[in-house]
Amino acid sequence: MSQDASTEGDLRNTGMSLKHDREWDYELDRIVEAVEERNATKVGLQFPEGLKRRGPAVADDLRALTDDVTYMLSGQPCYGACDLDTYLMRRTDVFVHFGHSPMKESDKIIYVPLFSNVDPFPIMEDSLDELETGDVGLVTTAQHMNRFEEMREWLEARDFTVHTRKGDDRLTHEGQVLGCNYASADIDADQVLYVGGGKFHPLGLAMEHPDKRVVIADPVNNVVTVADTEQFMKQRYASVHKAMDAEKWGVIFCTKIGQGRWDMAEEIVNDNDDAYLITMDEVTPDRLRNFDMDAFVNTGCPRITTDDGPQFHKPMLTPGEYRIAVGDEPLDSLSFDTFHGTW
Amino acid sequence: MSQDASTEGDLRNTGMSLKHDREWDYELDRIVEAVEERNATKVGLQFPEGLKRRGPAVADDLRALTDDVTYMLSGQPCYGACDLDTYLMRRTDVFVHFGHSPMKESDKIIYVPLFSNVDPFPIMEDSLDELETGDVGLVTTAQHMNRFEEMREWLEARDFTVHTRKGDDRLTHEGQVLGCNYASADIDADQVLYVGGGKFHPLGLAMEHPDKRVVIADPVNNVVTVADTEQFMKQRYASVHKAMDAEKWGVIFCTKIGQGRWDMAEEIVNDNDDAYLITMDEVTPDRLRNFDMDAFVNTGCPRITTDDGPQFHKPMLTPGEYRIAVGDEPLDSLSFDTFHGTW
Repeated sequence: MSQDASTEGDLRNTGMSLKHDREWDYELDRIVEAVEERNATKVGLQFPEGLKRRGPAVADDLRALTDDVTYMLSGQPCYGACDLDTYLMRRTDVFVHFGHSPMKESDKIIYVPLFSNVDPFPIMEDSLDELETGDVGLVTTAQHMNRFEEMREWLEARDFTVHTRKGDDRLTHEGQVLGCNYASADIDADQVLYVGGGKFHPLGLAMEHPDKRVVIADPVNNVVTVADTEQFMKQRYASVHKAMDAEKWGVIFCTKIGQGRWDMAEEIVNDNDDAYLITMDEVTPDRLRNFDMDAFVNTGCPRITTDDGPQFHKPMLTPGEYRIAVGDEPLDSLSFDTFHGTW
Repeated sequence: MSQDASTEGDLRNTGMSLKHDREWDYELDRIVEAVEERNATKVGLQFPEGLKRRGPAVADDLRALTDDVTYMLSGQPCYGACDLDTYLMRRTDVFVHFGHSPMKESDKIIYVPLFSNVDPFPIMEDSLDELETGDVGLVTTAQHMNRFEEMREWLEARDFTVHTRKGDDRLTHEGQVLGCNYASADIDADQVLYVGGGKFHPLGLAMEHPDKRVVIADPVNNVVTVADTEQFMKQRYASVHKAMDAEKWGVIFCTKIGQGRWDMAEEIVNDNDDAYLITMDEVTPDRLRNFDMDAFVNTGCPRITTDDGPQFHKPMLTPGEYRIAVGDEPLDSLSFDTFHGTW
């Protein structure tokens, strides 16, 4: 982030919160159709954290449109399509996951993406000051995906050569990034325009593509910045250094459907007599405080490690950082932890 | 609790914490035998919260006794045999649950009870001042169960007629109580001696058996008291009164294996258009804050409702309290919520 980032308010606002009034399209027709087709009597509804309070009204609308159906709201925390409530999914006839694009298609699941209706073009106009004409990569997040083609045309109308790609299997759309996957920015241009809220996504993007300048056009907080990984890198190195003295390592295997890297977790434990495998779904400071460990390696969601790291009572590292801390890799090999499988 | 209860320190200490030095018997031989019999390559170990820090040492000992086995420590919170880590159980060849007695026997699970080695007799001696000679009921918790017969004999040697019973299917042992089940105190005596730590178990006991005097001999905190439900009742009535104005109810169905009461949850939602079903495993204030409800009914663990109730941002009621709040039952029907099934 640039120096004046501190004046921008909380950039963790990912567009799911309420800075702007929005109407979401919950695609009730599609849900009702599935309920009728399957003669469903139990329907599960899962919302991300910022939209959970919309659940009851959505359930009300669905109750009015269907008969003899019990609607169940998932109370489990949810941070992505990697994070399906599999308990609810297995026990309902129709399971609706709101707010994320599919990580993997399934007949059982209805994904309702919930696109933002914030206009991205005013802030893209501002971002032109930070872009050099010529080649530019374009990426965005799931909630702005519905306007991706318009964004591309908008840039092309201003004489940019726009490079985009669909990252890999973990991603649904051309140009889409996830907090743990920036494969869509692996394009032939020295600059990338990220259109979307938050600072964590573009930070990961800049870490994963250190040779590229990452310009952030944030239509949610109405601000343009250039990603600066320096402070982030310092934090990560500080954690790695602290963990170098660890005598006991807790190795976390995350049991969430799209966040498990078993081989990686098992390999660490097999190679290190001082490492202990700990399995859990939600990885929280409270849950780890009960374990008497000197440091942790998180093979689950990299965002827990990098964004929430300082909240844990002991150093929390990514698998790559762990290899540096135990001396298997050189210090300068530090990079962002990304995920490339589905589930 | 009697008036001087405030000087006794934190009576939520259930004997699992470290007020006294203890050696636990982890029954490693029994675990190793199962590993060998089943040619296990993956073994899951689940400890209650207060003992999670013992996990790595137990894993070390087991590693030394077995070859080519990966030991996995459950990082999920655990508060009883109702609270098995079913994810880990399904994915391991041997699954060991420490610290609780079996709620239901299963070939897959090895239950290791971890009995307390605190001597209960000094505090039972003190409790004689609060007991009348004659008939007395005797109950205790899982961790003191290994000395139950000695306790009975000790009382009989002092001319008491000791009444005990095995409660119901949810309980393993004669005279055992759980935080949600006091059926073992349903005996023919006007007084019951509860031997064990904590104040929550005997409070539930006194609520469930209001006609009996409940004397608490707490060998962990070394104190004798008589259960007094008055303050507790006031708290519960305050919550019920607050919830009477609720326009939107969140009805929690707990997905933990031994804590689900589906019929109860479904009935509430079917009978009340302003009630919404929310499913979750851990019922925490953080998780419920995201739901825009005026009050909650918890059909899961009653202890969450009664012991942690004040930490929730909105009134949290038991199913019985809910029926009072919505006018289906009279105010004086308030009683303790208990569980009687297994899983």
